[in-house]
Amino acid sequence: MATIRDVAKRAGVSVATVSRALNDKGYVHEDTRKLIHDAIQQLNYRPNEVARSLYNKKSRLIGLLLPDIRNPFFPELARGVEDEIQAHDFRLMIGNADEKPEKESEYVHTFKQNHVTGIISATSNKDISFYDELSFPVVFLDRTTDQHPSVYADGVDGGKMAVRELVRRGSKRITLLRGPVELKTAQDRFKGAIDEICTLNVEFNVMNTSSFAFEDAEESARELFERYPDTDGIIASNDIVAAAILHEALRTGKGIPEDLQIIGFDDIPLSKLLYPSLSTIRQPAYEMGREAAGLLIKMIQGKAVEQKNIKLPVTFIERQTTRKDGNNG
Amino acid sequence: MATIRDVAKRAGVSVATVSRALNDKGYVHEDTRKLIHDAIQQLNYRPNEVARSLYNKKSRLIGLLLPDIRNPFFPELARGVEDEIQAHDFRLMIGNADEKPEKESEYVHTFKQNHVTGIISATSNKDISFYDELSFPVVFLDRTTDQHPSVYADGVDGGKMAVRELVRRGSKRITLLRGPVELKTAQDRFKGAIDEICTLNVEFNVMNTSSFAFEDAEESARELFERYPDTDGIIASNDIVAAAILHEALRTGKGIPEDLQIIGFDDIPLSKLLYPSLSTIRQPAYEMGREAAGLLIKMIQGKAVEQKNIKLPVTFIERQTTRKDGNNG
Repeated sequence: MATIRDVAKRAGVSVATVSRALNDKGYVHEDTRKLIHDAIQQLNYRPNEVARSLYNKKSRLIGLLLPDIRNPFFPELARGVEDEIQAHDFRLMIGNADEKPEKESEYVHTFKQNHVTGIISATSNKDISFYDELSFPVVFLDRTTDQHPSVYADGVDGGKMAVRELVRRGSKRITLLRGPVELKTAQDRFKGAIDEICTLNVEFNVMNTSSFAFEDAEESARELFERYPDTDGIIASNDIVAAAILHEALRTGKGIPEDLQIIGFDDIPLSKLLYPSLSTIRQPAYEMGREAAGLLIKMIQGKAVEQKNIKLPVTFIERQTTRKDGNNG
Repeated sequence: MATIRDVAKRAGVSVATVSRALNDKGYVHEDTRKLIHDAIQQLNYRPNEVARSLYNKKSRLIGLLLPDIRNPFFPELARGVEDEIQAHDFRLMIGNADEKPEKESEYVHTFKQNHVTGIISATSNKDISFYDELSFPVVFLDRTTDQHPSVYADGVDGGKMAVRELVRRGSKRITLLRGPVELKTAQDRFKGAIDEICTLNVEFNVMNTSSFAFEDAEESARELFERYPDTDGIIASNDIVAAAILHEALRTGKGIPEDLQIIGFDDIPLSKLLYPSLSTIRQPAYEMGREAAGLLIKMIQGKAVEQKNIKLPVTFIERQTTRKDGNNG
């Protein structure tokens, strides 16, 4: 039977390096991991799992950084992460960074102090330099980046999809709500929507929303109908904003979906409980969490990772705030 | 200036015991903590904070156990806990136990392995024996128990309040939705409602709901109107169930609040975005989280805790699913 020495020899590295790669301790270059991985496969090497788990007992923590768990999109994401790491016998540390760089950097620091073996970060802060010097892998979640491994939903396609669904269901004067400019994911869906709508023969206008918070959403909704009273189709920046718009539309007596169609983004659990229930572009939040955790664990275990940037598809969920297809106005 | 030796002498205990109490290491009996606490106050002893924090660096983790972060009540609770412990330089480990005792016990075990200094548990499992042998303090959250320190909202009063508000706003045939029997908090509010309604001259009926999940809530709503088509006031077991009932009521053409009044429980963030917005009994979730964390930290620091079971008040939030006071039917 092959030993760790045989693996080291075949891979052309030291036994200590193989041990580091197997036990997720310290930095091992990606190319080296690949060599070790190949050697393990060729030799059919089976490390002693009991010894490994004893050795590793103290460092099976994974840190998860979120903007704010109170935004209903993130509990789904967090639960996906937890279920996946739990299945691999890892545990979760969690922190909410409120999109504040100093809070994010502090959490990364304390995660490190607590000997996490990896971090999943779902924040949106542009400066991610403090992730560069870490001795363990980092996966970005709900965020597009080339510099690091990442898992995200196809927001650009989601934006296009929302426009197509509204237009083919008869909306002719569409309002695009643009989410916070500092959120790349929000801008991706906005960009997709703009690209698509420019190819079509419909009027449209754009309104900025400064945040995804409940209070701001109510404010935005009121402003929207003052500025664009005759809009007949709204693409909201997310489901919370869409719920606030739906509320305001019903309050002011608009017929939904006859006078006005609304499409949200995310498909948070409450979207289907609204009345009329909300048509929306679904991001697979739970699955995104699981994928990110799966990717991170592969990296922690030194396994070869073929795809480092995983883009998951979004889907249109047809409910009652859009008209039946073909029934266009 | 007083030294740790002076404190030990005054309290009649060993220096090691004082050190344990100060540094949150190992078990110190509550009475002994009290003696040490008094001695510290009498001598105006100031421990060396720098030395203490160095010594403690590795054990500033607090474990939080939740039923399921995807229930919109819990993110608020979790955020309250995190903000409070963060302010005291502690960090959060989190686990969702899904109300499964074996998952809960496993999490407690792994929290222990990860050297947490305390646990906050918001689960509802009846068997809490595995919390008894721990060497660090435990605070129960959103749960009434005499055996352990706890922080919870006054559900009994909330149930009474809901009945009073519905009746004085004119409902005469009230349906009480009883939450899952295994959840003490759900039963507290149900008990309060039953006690109150029995003192009043109104008809009522009771319907059981087996869970707080979104899918089950839709099912319950449909069943309710089949069984009690002429009910004119509903006290839902929580806001999710209330949202599902509101949805079903609007779908079947009921006038809200003219034909039917609805009161929820919790005041989750989306309640005010529903249309009509949901009247509800508010539990101060965020504050409950902060209180529980504050209580736990006091215990970790060996400070005297005067009140070990903290009951926070609930409040009626008047929105649009109830009639104006005095305008009774």
